[in-house]
Amino acid sequence: MSAPRSECPINLTLEALGDRWSLIVVRDIMFGRFRHFRELQANSIEGIASNILADRLKRLVEAGLLTRADDPAHKQKQIYSLTEKAIQLLPLLVAMGAWGRRHMPAGRELSVRQELLEQGGPPLWDAFMDELRTLHLGAPAKGPSVLAQLQAAYEEAVATVAESARDSRETTR
Amino acid sequence: MSAPRSECPINLTLEALGDRWSLIVVRDIMFGRFRHFRELQANSIEGIASNILADRLKRLVEAGLLTRADDPAHKQKQIYSLTEKAIQLLPLLVAMGAWGRRHMPAGRELSVRQELLEQGGPPLWDAFMDELRTLHLGAPAKGPSVLAQLQAAYEEAVATVAESARDSRETTR
Repeated sequence: MSAPRSECPINLTLEALGDRWSLIVVRDIMFGRFRHFRELQANSIEGIASNILADRLKRLVEAGLLTRADDPAHKQKQIYSLTEKAIQLLPLLVAMGAWGRRHMPAGRELSVRQELLEQGGPPLWDAFMDELRTLHLGAPAKGPSVLAQLQAAYEEAVATVAESARDSRETTR
Repeated sequence: MSAPRSECPINLTLEALGDRWSLIVVRDIMFGRFRHFRELQANSIEGIASNILADRLKRLVEAGLLTRADDPAHKQKQIYSLTEKAIQLLPLLVAMGAWGRRHMPAGRELSVRQELLEQGGPPLWDAFMDELRTLHLGAPAKGPSVLAQLQAAYEEAVATVAESARDSRETTR
């Protein structure tokens, strides 16, 4: 990062995070559990372009938010890990999601995990951050998986939406 | 806003806010109490360029985060007001400041207000948002001014830093 324009903590955060794609990539690594370039690109719901993804991964490594290493499980693949600094972005991502859920036309399926995180509050965020430390920093596991809980709620919402779509097709038949 | 790239609430928030300058402008209106174009430009600690300021004010009005009106107190001036949607960005700005204070080289004077907001937690944010509703939306005042409290803490920090700089000059004399 070049010299910051001010030492205001809000400005420094905005300068460190860069444009919106950087946080989208952090979100996908944090919530989607995607750790490889191809996975991140193939599963991007915003359809991130590969040159943008490559550039933002590089910037995130330079900013100390990600680390990159050879993946011992997949030869010729590089695995990305969140750093402690990036894991601590969770409350900020929850605040973004909370605002988006209230003020923007957010999709039902994509909002249920956000809803759970808001309801759970700081204790659930702490448990989730501990789980991310286990997954990304090799810290010992401390409790039940928050990611599994979030994923189950998401899958249930997807199933419910699919079911009600089927019901409404049957009603209009 | 053109069609969003996804209905994820985090993505929708990032798309609505645009680049970092938009949030910097919201911050200055919210915390700095600046309501006119010239005030916002003259007091910008990041030295925002006037064309960027003009563009972001326009976008913020279009996004429903600001309203613009003739200022009854100053002929030929336009006054900007935060909308309810923008006032509800406070927790997100606090989360940004909290992260910046911990992970970036934030200045002491520019961090004390942030520190108070973190310590006060959601009850203080609610009181601050009520005060913003009074200032920007004409809602009746509900309690003592949070802005005055934040401003006093900031001025005290500025005075302390100035004093310790004077002390260290005297010591090294």
